[in-house]
Amino acid sequence: MKRTLGTCYYPEHWPEEIWEQDAARMVEAGLTWIRIGEFAWSRIEPTPGDLHWDWLDRAIEVLGRAGLKVVLGTPTATPPRWVVDKHPDMLAVDADGNPRKFGSRRHYCFSHAGYLDECRRIVGLVAERYGANPHVAAWQTDNEYGCHDTIISYSDAARLAFRDWLRARYDSVEVLNKAWGNIFWSMEYNSFDQIDLPNLTVTEPNPAHVMAFRRFSSDQVVVFNKVQVDILKQHTSAPIAHNYMGRITDFDHYDVGADLEIASWDSYPLGFLEDRVGASLEEQRDYARQGDPDFQAFHHDLYRAVGAAKGNQPVAQGRWWVMEQQPGPVNWAPYNPSPLPGMVRLWTWEAFAHGAEAVCYFRWRQAPFAQEQLHAGLLRPDSVDAPAIHEARQVRDELIDAPEVQPKQAPVALVFDYASDWMWATQPQGQGLSYFGLVLDTYRALRRAGLTVDILPLRADVFDGYKAIFVPGVMYLSDEIKAALSASKAQVVLGPRTGARDADFVMPHAPLPPAMPGLDVTVSRLETLRPDMPIALQGGGAITGYLEEIEGSAETLLKTEAGAPVAMRQGNLTYMAGWGDGAAMDRLVALIGGAAGLELRQLPKGIRTRDTATERFWFNHTTEAVEVEGEMLPAAGVRRVALT
Amino acid sequence: MKRTLGTCYYPEHWPEEIWEQDAARMVEAGLTWIRIGEFAWSRIEPTPGDLHWDWLDRAIEVLGRAGLKVVLGTPTATPPRWVVDKHPDMLAVDADGNPRKFGSRRHYCFSHAGYLDECRRIVGLVAERYGANPHVAAWQTDNEYGCHDTIISYSDAARLAFRDWLRARYDSVEVLNKAWGNIFWSMEYNSFDQIDLPNLTVTEPNPAHVMAFRRFSSDQVVVFNKVQVDILKQHTSAPIAHNYMGRITDFDHYDVGADLEIASWDSYPLGFLEDRVGASLEEQRDYARQGDPDFQAFHHDLYRAVGAAKGNQPVAQGRWWVMEQQPGPVNWAPYNPSPLPGMVRLWTWEAFAHGAEAVCYFRWRQAPFAQEQLHAGLLRPDSVDAPAIHEARQVRDELIDAPEVQPKQAPVALVFDYASDWMWATQPQGQGLSYFGLVLDTYRALRRAGLTVDILPLRADVFDGYKAIFVPGVMYLSDEIKAALSASKAQVVLGPRTGARDADFVMPHAPLPPAMPGLDVTVSRLETLRPDMPIALQGGGAITGYLEEIEGSAETLLKTEAGAPVAMRQGNLTYMAGWGDGAAMDRLVALIGGAAGLELRQLPKGIRTRDTATERFWFNHTTEAVEVEGEMLPAAGVRRVALT
Amino acid sequence: MKRTLGTCYYPEHWPEEIWEQDAARMVEAGLTWIRIGEFAWSRIEPTPGDLHWDWLDRAIEVLGRAGLKVVLGTPTATPPRWVVDKHPDMLAVDADGNPRKFGSRRHYCFSHAGYLDECRRIVGLVAERYGANPHVAAWQTDNEYGCHDTIISYSDAARLAFRDWLRARYDSVEVLNKAWGNIFWSMEYNSFDQIDLPNLTVTEPNPAHVMAFRRFSSDQVVVFNKVQVDILKQHTSAPIAHNYMGRITDFDHYDVGADLEIASWDSYPLGFLEDRVGASLEEQRDYARQGDPDFQAFHHDLYRAVGAAKGNQPVAQGRWWVMEQQPGPVNWAPYNPSPLPGMVRLWTWEAFAHGAEAVCYFRWRQAPFAQEQLHAGLLRPDSVDAPAIHEARQVRDELIDAPEVQPKQAPVALVFDYASDWMWATQPQGQGLSYFGLVLDTYRALRRAGLTVDILPLRADVFDGYKAIFVPGVMYLSDEIKAALSASKAQVVLGPRTGARDADFVMPHAPLPPAMPGLDVTVSRLETLRPDMPIALQGGGAITGYLEEIEGSAETLLKTEAGAPVAMRQGNLTYMAGWGDGAAMDRLVALIGGAAGLELRQLPKGIRTRDTATERFWFNHTTEAVEVEGEMLPAAGVRRVALT
Repeated sequence: MKRTLGTCYYPEHWPEEIWEQDAARMVEAGLTWIRIGEFAWSRIEPTPGDLHWDWLDRAIEVLGRAGLKVVLGTPTATPPRWVVDKHPDMLAVDADGNPRKFGSRRHYCFSHAGYLDECRRIVGLVAERYGANPHVAAWQTDNEYGCHDTIISYSDAARLAFRDWLRARYDSVEVLNKAWGNIFWSMEYNSFDQIDLPNLTVTEPNPAHVMAFRRFSSDQVVVFNKVQVDILKQHTSAPIAHNYMGRITDFDHYDVGADLEIASWDSYPLGFLEDRVGASLEEQRDYARQGDPDFQAFHHDLYRAVGAAKGNQPVAQGRWWVMEQQPGPVNWAPYNPSPLPGMVRLWTWEAFAHGAEAVCYFRWRQAPFAQEQLHAGLLRPDSVDAPAIHEARQVRDELIDAPEVQPKQAPVALVFDYASDWMWATQPQGQGLSYFGLVLDTYRALRRAGLTVDILPLRADVFDGYKAIFVPGVMYLSDEIKAALSASKAQVVLGPRTGARDADFVMPHAPLPPAMPGLDVTVSRLETLRPDMPIALQGGGAITGYLEEIEGSAETLLKTEAGAPVAMRQGNLTYMAGWGDGAAMDRLVALIGGAAGLELRQLPKGIRTRDTATERFWFNHTTEAVEVEGEMLPAAGVRRVALT
Repeated sequence: MKRTLGTCYYPEHWPEEIWEQDAARMVEAGLTWIRIGEFAWSRIEPTPGDLHWDWLDRAIEVLGRAGLKVVLGTPTATPPRWVVDKHPDMLAVDADGNPRKFGSRRHYCFSHAGYLDECRRIVGLVAERYGANPHVAAWQTDNEYGCHDTIISYSDAARLAFRDWLRARYDSVEVLNKAWGNIFWSMEYNSFDQIDLPNLTVTEPNPAHVMAFRRFSSDQVVVFNKVQVDILKQHTSAPIAHNYMGRITDFDHYDVGADLEIASWDSYPLGFLEDRVGASLEEQRDYARQGDPDFQAFHHDLYRAVGAAKGNQPVAQGRWWVMEQQPGPVNWAPYNPSPLPGMVRLWTWEAFAHGAEAVCYFRWRQAPFAQEQLHAGLLRPDSVDAPAIHEARQVRDELIDAPEVQPKQAPVALVFDYASDWMWATQPQGQGLSYFGLVLDTYRALRRAGLTVDILPLRADVFDGYKAIFVPGVMYLSDEIKAALSASKAQVVLGPRTGARDADFVMPHAPLPPAMPGLDVTVSRLETLRPDMPIALQGGGAITGYLEEIEGSAETLLKTEAGAPVAMRQGNLTYMAGWGDGAAMDRLVALIGGAAGLELRQLPKGIRTRDTATERFWFNHTTEAVEVEGEMLPAAGVRRVALT
Repeated sequence: MKRTLGTCYYPEHWPEEIWEQDAARMVEAGLTWIRIGEFAWSRIEPTPGDLHWDWLDRAIEVLGRAGLKVVLGTPTATPPRWVVDKHPDMLAVDADGNPRKFGSRRHYCFSHAGYLDECRRIVGLVAERYGANPHVAAWQTDNEYGCHDTIISYSDAARLAFRDWLRARYDSVEVLNKAWGNIFWSMEYNSFDQIDLPNLTVTEPNPAHVMAFRRFSSDQVVVFNKVQVDILKQHTSAPIAHNYMGRITDFDHYDVGADLEIASWDSYPLGFLEDRVGASLEEQRDYARQGDPDFQAFHHDLYRAVGAAKGNQPVAQGRWWVMEQQPGPVNWAPYNPSPLPGMVRLWTWEAFAHGAEAVCYFRWRQAPFAQEQLHAGLLRPDSVDAPAIHEARQVRDELIDAPEVQPKQAPVALVFDYASDWMWATQPQGQGLSYFGLVLDTYRALRRAGLTVDILPLRADVFDGYKAIFVPGVMYLSDEIKAALSASKAQVVLGPRTGARDADFVMPHAPLPPAMPGLDVTVSRLETLRPDMPIALQGGGAITGYLEEIEGSAETLLKTEAGAPVAMRQGNLTYMAGWGDGAAMDRLVALIGGAAGLELRQLPKGIRTRDTATERFWFNHTTEAVEVEGEMLPAAGVRRVALT
């Protein structure tokens, strides 16, 4: 599979006269893919049933004729106003009980049957018309599920659907009462019809209630997406993708990915740094024009795994794209600086280094109207080249003699499990603690050690072939997973909170967690810590935020200055009982790396590396040149070395 | 009265097979009391009228037979779902107008007549069945009135009840208009039926309107509680308690206490430190594992006074318990660290030193399900001893030769008045200023000087026998109270804001406050200050936050560097015109202590002391050993010395 | 026109017996004006149609007979409760959809036809009765439009009125769709009746939608005010004013001012410093008792321009007053300190220096009831003189031989445009960026350079006669305005964001902004910056928060250390591409001042100066004496020097 470039285009935004010239300029810039259509419903069907295909026919024809391959989006993220008039209760409802009104995008509740029917209808019509179009080489369902906090809805439709979901999951309401521990505060139900959504309660609702609602909400997305996929499949054999958004964890991307050929995501490094990475103020300042050095890479590795969820590839060979790549300042973060020159190229190559098939810049031309008018494009609004297009052209030239996508299993794996993120969020026990943050911190430490990493779903069949597997913070593991990890030949690192809950969010307690076969470690108590009370470790590093008291016969690898065990190992299994700071995590990685026979090298700040089957990449995320393997790598620099 | 220990237990949470063993282990650990039943309504009455007493009969029998005394709770804090289905408008309504839904606890509005009837019914049934049970040695009404901000409700039921309350308080709406100054912004009413609740107004509502609503809301709790007490009294002669929660000031605890034999409170030192003490970041760090050194003691002294509100004892002899004592990390604060070893014992002894009859640990066994699964107990969820039970056993042993509860009037009194807290909150005039905070700061200074303190209600008949009485921040005093304080033989310290409002929240203005007989001091103007503008005093210390300009012929005790009087004295009356920092408060206490002939000793940081009739206690709230009277008192140490 | 003093009085708050004495004391204190009546509706008309004029007749007679001139307010800011009972849907609705209830003031939606009729009726009755009264020498409409965030309402009435407004502005919904770029996210409407208000959308609504709603909301105020003015004009020839509130920018004050003879504003320097100036913490500390040294002056100059909006005077001669002047601590800011002695006098003279005809102190006597009981007055609540009255008397004496109001055009002008403030707020692109803040920072720099400044509306006919005109941040300029600025003989300073949008909030893009005739500068890209990433300029100063990349053939005046142009000049036009810090702004002012032939002198911190036709004023806003032109000016000092 060739490495390719692309862009996102909105023919409906521009005069038809310039489409052809735009297409020619895209081809000149080395672009292969052009994504269109995902926000165009009101132009396709301005009033109910009045379908206007002509303009879209012509647009696809013009673009395709120029040599571009079209990725066609289903337009369901932006139902026109008349759809809402037809189904006034289709709007999602926020946690305060207010409907989330028409006037922007994603204004629908996943549980609304009427809207789902509208989606069936419009997707069917689009698929029917373009499913066999030779220029349409891939499809995208909807757009950025979950963006703007749109997975969870407290609507009437959601309430009814949730009750049905509960009926299907639990044999009876008595079973549910018991599974949730509803006796606790006389919260027992007499029937499923009494169960409300867990918002606006006097104090926190039963976490089991919340967790069930989180699982339900995720499942609704899977159903919604699959409805579209099933229809598309009737009309096309082109691959279908969805463009996930960074750090949206409110639904299980693996579950959605299981119905899709390609995973893709929308990568906005500078927006993310300001908006959702969770970096320190110092890091935000140091990386203000480069973005976080690990956040994008983490998502690249994650979506490679999501791309493999369909099950026809090994995890390391999942098909994935960057569907939207930031090309300049965006408009939506608290602060929106310009990227350092070279970063658009770096981000592009970084994606390729992690196995991307395609990187598409969002968007072709900066739009001078509506919400995103200060979101940069490859062209300025006056159609003059913007800075990013020059970097795209450089990549175009560099791709000429570069290898194709060359997947290779990494030596180290890191598990990322969506349900664990919901579990931590449901009961964090300490301010600021999140599963995503813990996994990202682990990923950072692996990367600082120069490692190439695969991210894995929590599945028993994916662990083979790794020297080390990190499974931080997974709060619910089935017995099958536990057995697979115990039986693995890899060094396996668990904890904290491993197995701390069952699937319903009840604490297994006989024995206490982690109850891991082959590992005599028990969590007897746990505490959370204010940021000003780190607990120093003997030998360096500290625990911050979260710490368990553990006991058992396993060997102690790390301990507090007071002598309490923090990391314990037995056989191939290591349990890490707290949230380590950078130094502690580096020590843990070094210990495990040593045991696993991994080749580690501690990298300078902001330098990252990754291997493909035949190449070693180096990336400099800093504003200064840094010596890497004897040569200076400039700021925002990329080096690609053939592996021999 | 013997000093005793106890615990809180939920037989409905555990298999019946282990009740007996649990009971035996409680007895072994030295426990006397076992509180049960307060959240069990859905097991007593799973559906309307279908009463299931058998399990509770057996539980009480098993526990009683083992030698434990049962405290039986009325289950009205957690009405089952079917009660809400029957009375959908019984839910309280928040300030934004949203009903506070079923799914946790305390989901009721105190003003709802239908729910009050349900309470009458279920309390009557429980009382009838167990009122004469020999194992039931005490009762608890409901649970933690006001926890989760549940006193104030903006429901329709509250609106109607408020109008009735106003009709009863004011002869006519004209009288109300005049009393509230409604002419101010044409806020005059033509009838009581026009009066709404004071939420969601364009800008702040009339403070008189707010204050009336606060008084009404408090009165509704008193009525609600008395309904239960009156029913219980028909069936039992066992003492009745309520378990108040720390720093809940939204209703008048003295008024509720006037209908009860015993006051009790729920003491969570570490949770409080993070959540509601109002300590500085430095104090939060220093006391993270010990809790604030004064906050619990303050509540102990407060509830001794609340326990005396029934009026059959002097204030210093009020009966009170700790109904729930933190035994390890809790689950509900922003951060939840483990206590320093020894603190559970310290907290227990501290309560006894302040006159507690009983200290009950919450809870017996950590629950592995629902909201509080990370709240520690005396046992781990797997029934293994948790750390706290060892400290309980140590107290058990130490109690053997310790004296019984020995009340003694303290030399110093500090007035705490709930209505003043509402008044400050209604019109704080400066960010972060609260009456509770001012009183706590005063209490801290008294404690730093080594004093044993009684807390008093604002009542004319309680001032006798003290050498000094501190009455900071009381915004409304009746003429009778003023006369009693003026006539007192004690040194009386008033201010700031003394007598600043009448009962309706209007400023008395001819003459200006404080208008205190025997004290020629007038507040001519007042100002509030940002934290970065302390006003230094001559001789040390500073005023922060709040300062009045005072004038008059009284003697100046403290003055600003610019020479403005800050504390003035005439006869036995001293007026303190501002909120002193620690150094200023220490100087004030020293001055008053000198005049009153009090024995003062400035204690090292974190060391506190208290005398009973025959014992002097020392407590070390720090993490280091400290020399106290020639001997080292270890971290978390308790010393009990016989007074000769 | 003589410079005069006045006060605000509420006869309805006080016993009739003291009116006469109050009036006599006012006259003694040198007061000329007395504003009354604006909150008295419930006393004029306690129940529908039951009119009580007698008390007001007598009040006006008593005050007038004493020699005072009455400013009579229309009472429409505080409709009585019965008006709301009659029109329950007249309440404004907040952004969350909650009605903003009765119980304070300003509880009405400007778009409610029924309430507008009530206003017509009551204003007609008041005007009829007092329009010819010889003591009523001026009128005030309503009170502080916009205070408490009351311009924007999301009510049903507003929704319907907004649709009508849109119908009038756009020929058809297709025109609107195109003008707003609604195709962007399929936001196209089929009819005006589908257009909702832009609140509670899933993510940000179309900024064009928001901007139209802002324009509409402003227009509703103009209509509301004009209804009253038209009625008053039928009965009186006395001048009509409105009292605007500081930093309320939600409606266009020039538009309202076009219907009024006099602009007035309510000046609360200490409240503003804590509440809305946007000063740094250091400035808040340094000026805690003096107020910001530029904020009041800015409003003085602004309201002189608003006072000229009626069009019968040059901008520099606009008639304006301070209708409410802070006399001591207020009650509504986060912290409410006392003014430094002398500041009340300083604030009064500062207003006169900027051309005020009258300064009225708010209020005569501190009210001991309702919301503002801690708002100081000229008298204490017990009628004793409060500190401010002594300073008022000093001004009274100083006025005896002072010149009358002597307007003179300033050498420098600064444009302030309300619509630009809405535009920046609609799409700030960076946290904390506001148009008001940018203009105030520019004003500060001009004042630090010792300049006397006129503030101008964005109108083509007001630019003559200035040596320099600063037009920072104006996002929409008509071609006529652009031409007038280009043709001006003044040095004109534009940018940043000049011409960045059209009137509908779409970015002009062919060519890109600013597209200013005579200035070859193009904004090719822009970025916003976190506070920790200032961009240093060669030669000193830095850009903070906001920076554009500019290109073109104009001369570079300022550039970044990396060499990027930041300020460029061509002919008389200078474009400033970023938000300068203090040092950068001082450099810009120095450069422009040099080119314009302005006399500049950099003033010490907190010292400000202003010239009238015959006087030069000096004001010391600091707490220390400062040498000014060879003499010491004491803290809070005022010096008035005759210009020769």
